[in-house]
Amino acid sequence: MRLEVPRGLRDIEPEEFDKIEWLREKFMETLDLFGFKKMEPSTIELLDILEAKSGPSIIDEIYFLRDKAGRELGLRFDLTVGISRYVCSRRDLEYPVKVGAFSSVWRYDEPQRGRYRWFYQWDAEIYGKPCVESDSEIIELAKVYFEKIGLENIQVELNDRKVVEEYIVNVTGVKEEKAVNELLRLLDKTTKKSEEEIFSEYISKGFEKKVIEDVLELAKISEKTENVLYEMEKKGLKKIEDLKKVVEELEIRGIKDFRINLGIVRGIDYYSGIVYEFYDPALPRLAVAGGGRYDKLMQVFGRKDLSATGAAGGIERILMVLEERGKIKINKKRKIFVAFVTSELKKKAQKIVTELRKTGYPAEMDIYARDLRKQLAYASKYSNYAIILAPKEDLENKCIIKNLETGNEEKVEYTKIFEKLGTVID
Amino acid sequence: MRLEVPRGLRDIEPEEFDKIEWLREKFMETLDLFGFKKMEPSTIELLDILEAKSGPSIIDEIYFLRDKAGRELGLRFDLTVGISRYVCSRRDLEYPVKVGAFSSVWRYDEPQRGRYRWFYQWDAEIYGKPCVESDSEIIELAKVYFEKIGLENIQVELNDRKVVEEYIVNVTGVKEEKAVNELLRLLDKTTKKSEEEIFSEYISKGFEKKVIEDVLELAKISEKTENVLYEMEKKGLKKIEDLKKVVEELEIRGIKDFRINLGIVRGIDYYSGIVYEFYDPALPRLAVAGGGRYDKLMQVFGRKDLSATGAAGGIERILMVLEERGKIKINKKRKIFVAFVTSELKKKAQKIVTELRKTGYPAEMDIYARDLRKQLAYASKYSNYAIILAPKEDLENKCIIKNLETGNEEKVEYTKIFEKLGTVID
Repeated sequence: MRLEVPRGLRDIEPEEFDKIEWLREKFMETLDLFGFKKMEPSTIELLDILEAKSGPSIIDEIYFLRDKAGRELGLRFDLTVGISRYVCSRRDLEYPVKVGAFSSVWRYDEPQRGRYRWFYQWDAEIYGKPCVESDSEIIELAKVYFEKIGLENIQVELNDRKVVEEYIVNVTGVKEEKAVNELLRLLDKTTKKSEEEIFSEYISKGFEKKVIEDVLELAKISEKTENVLYEMEKKGLKKIEDLKKVVEELEIRGIKDFRINLGIVRGIDYYSGIVYEFYDPALPRLAVAGGGRYDKLMQVFGRKDLSATGAAGGIERILMVLEERGKIKINKKRKIFVAFVTSELKKKAQKIVTELRKTGYPAEMDIYARDLRKQLAYASKYSNYAIILAPKEDLENKCIIKNLETGNEEKVEYTKIFEKLGTVID
Repeated sequence: MRLEVPRGLRDIEPEEFDKIEWLREKFMETLDLFGFKKMEPSTIELLDILEAKSGPSIIDEIYFLRDKAGRELGLRFDLTVGISRYVCSRRDLEYPVKVGAFSSVWRYDEPQRGRYRWFYQWDAEIYGKPCVESDSEIIELAKVYFEKIGLENIQVELNDRKVVEEYIVNVTGVKEEKAVNELLRLLDKTTKKSEEEIFSEYISKGFEKKVIEDVLELAKISEKTENVLYEMEKKGLKKIEDLKKVVEELEIRGIKDFRINLGIVRGIDYYSGIVYEFYDPALPRLAVAGGGRYDKLMQVFGRKDLSATGAAGGIERILMVLEERGKIKINKKRKIFVAFVTSELKKKAQKIVTELRKTGYPAEMDIYARDLRKQLAYASKYSNYAIILAPKEDLENKCIIKNLETGNEEKVEYTKIFEKLGTVID
């Protein structure tokens, strides 16, 4: 039998697991700091629900399955859709609903180096009345999270889809919804494609050269914040009020690393207002996270009374940045290895191990009862301290406590092991 | 659109999530105490791998799917199979491999009250040479985990499949492997069905009445440990050595709540030696966890050189017991709500919230800026302390710190908020 995982998938092995676990803990702490509840939406959704994001084409990007009654299902591709379905289906919740998650998602993309079809995401959402304070709250939460994991220089690129749509309608004269959406998608491409490619693609789609130029112009107005707002007012755009307020809110919250970037529209169709992406200087062209206001999804879910805003990020992208910066610090637990020289001392060793664990010290011994040399070879790889039980010392009711990093040894009475450990460890 | 999850599934809502999260943390701590590594095997497996458990019939019990190349896949139904596939595929690991997981599994059962098709399991496994110390280590780990979560009276029901097989062959004379397996399954049914039902089922399967009686007799020898071992020796059974040694090992480890129960065989076909189940007195007929040695799975995975033992348990079952006993204690975080009387004070309130979060205090304010009465109504539900910014006190550079549980209020200078919180909170 071939012991393989399916193509595009993998096991999360111990080394990677510990890193994800650390990112998870820090995210949970952050949710607590901001008063967010935590949940996990269903891993499997009805296909209809998943299509709410961007239509029937989603089936090509997900793991699709049928249950035994023939219902069409899919594995969730993000956490936003499921959490939103949950919040929209519950009319008894008190607003604002602030809720976050850190869980698995699945996407049926072509596998790339370091990207898999199953991965982890963090996610934070606020549902209720539309107000820029919630957009700012989400941005602050993301910034605090990134700081907690050692990414102090995350840059926020901020925009408002309403402003971009107003610009397209007013300046280019394009009004038809489908065409406006195409031009929004054009903006989204400016970070990934050259101008030539974009021109040739959009001319073949039937857009005028002047229209394309106007939209590309927009992506370039990304200098200092005040100037961008000023430029936009000069062009007669009226929908910049929310952006202005978010800028003010972020300043109150002491966030300085942000700028308005009119080229940020976020690919997904359901965004409706403020949008933003987070970048680390170590990875300038790949966002580590993104988010925005997505009232359109609330509407598809039949809740015209609700507004929603939130952000999410993939864990792999964060790990890439952390590795780039050499910043991964896993909290290594202090472990104690209990070794024994003769088999007569094995029982006593086992009792000490049990006692250590009960007291809260991670402890191990050799379940194979190999010779001392092998025991200590194993210990030196995984433990910081060894307690060695040897016949001569045992006669004096003593054992040896050895610091495996410095090599220092000390004879300690059995009854004083815990007292001693308390002073050498911690 | 109907905002539903597929049949048999559900969202893990905040209240349940916090409970699972607490069980997860405690399990991770336990793995650390015992020197186990942590991992998560692939969520999706090739169907071949899943069939290694109990043959092609598994397809009826899992979520089956195909990838876009037509490969047959399934969502994992436990963590043991995936971890075992991983360990068996890697010949570079150092033995013993001690590894654990706490993750989602999926089973396509008929949904029952409180049981879903997606749920969480804890799992701990040891791979390497066969030795009863590893069986004992797993049992001790489970017992320590249960104690950590407040289940101090978990009873271990212990058996050895080898002994039962020897008994069946020697005493009943049935030797053919398929028939022996049928009789093992009979033993497994003794906790679920009446003797009459078992007789009628097995007579119609072609077994003699005497054979059925002999096997049922075995399930009844479950008195005091020494007696069971003595009874078995008297019957001439030679394969009781491992059971004897595990009993000795458990005693060394200070575990008293166990007994030999010859009726425990565990349903799954891949078990090959020591097996055990864990019971809480509050739920006498439902095991909260189970495990055993499963060398047969290693053989199916092409690793005749490896022996494996491990235990796993569903989280829902644990929650049932904890609720039965009223023992669920979620660590409620101390939260601070910052309220403001006039809109002029809103900015200052936001700055204090940001500062509190930076310092590590969970803090919130009303993003909707409602009136003070509404702010405090919200605060009293979710927070322990309120910091209230009011115009009169503000003129003196002071705010009010209110204990929302006792109603006590105190005026505190802005610069002394943190000093004050340090003494009232914690």
